[in-house]
Amino acid sequence: MTEENVVYVGKKPTMNYVLAVVTLFNSGSDEIVIKARGKAISRAVDVAEIVKNRFINTVKVKDIQIGTESLSSEEGNDVNVSSIEITLAKEE
Amino acid sequence: MTEENVVYVGKKPTMNYVLAVVTLFNSGSDEIVIKARGKAISRAVDVAEIVKNRFINTVKVKDIQIGTESLSSEEGNDVNVSSIEITLAKEE
Repeated sequence: MTEENVVYVGKKPTMNYVLAVVTLFNSGSDEIVIKARGKAISRAVDVAEIVKNRFINTVKVKDIQIGTESLSSEEGNDVNVSSIEITLAKEE
Repeated sequence: MTEENVVYVGKKPTMNYVLAVVTLFNSGSDEIVIKARGKAISRAVDVAEIVKNRFINTVKVKDIQIGTESLSSEEGNDVNVSSIEITLAKEE
């Protein structure tokens, strides 16, 4: 999988990311990974659900992984933040 | 699975839910389901990660499901909200 098939969900409106995912599927991708960290995790789940329920009915959740990433703050402290990766796949 | 093995994550501090999950595992449960809706989804992922990384190393993520629930508001409108269910299991 190339990086082109990854959508990083952040603080923008949910529909921006939904549009990004739908556009990737419509341009020929069979599989998209939605990634998010911290508070954006809830929005990543919203994006996956909206794509599959409202836009492309042949898209299913193929895999969900959660993890912890260690970020270094500017003060040099390590901060742990949870992450999620939701893989959506188009079924034929 | 009985309802006793479910921890609903809401707006309380994350460690409250971590303690609830750890207590259930320590009182003999082999499997716990962490459920959350909407913005609490991020906290549910934090709870799962903290339990498995910091408290009980034999606990693994067995399954993650996401979905959409339709809630009726007081004005009678239907509001869709995303949900997550994270199943944690103790490995021998």
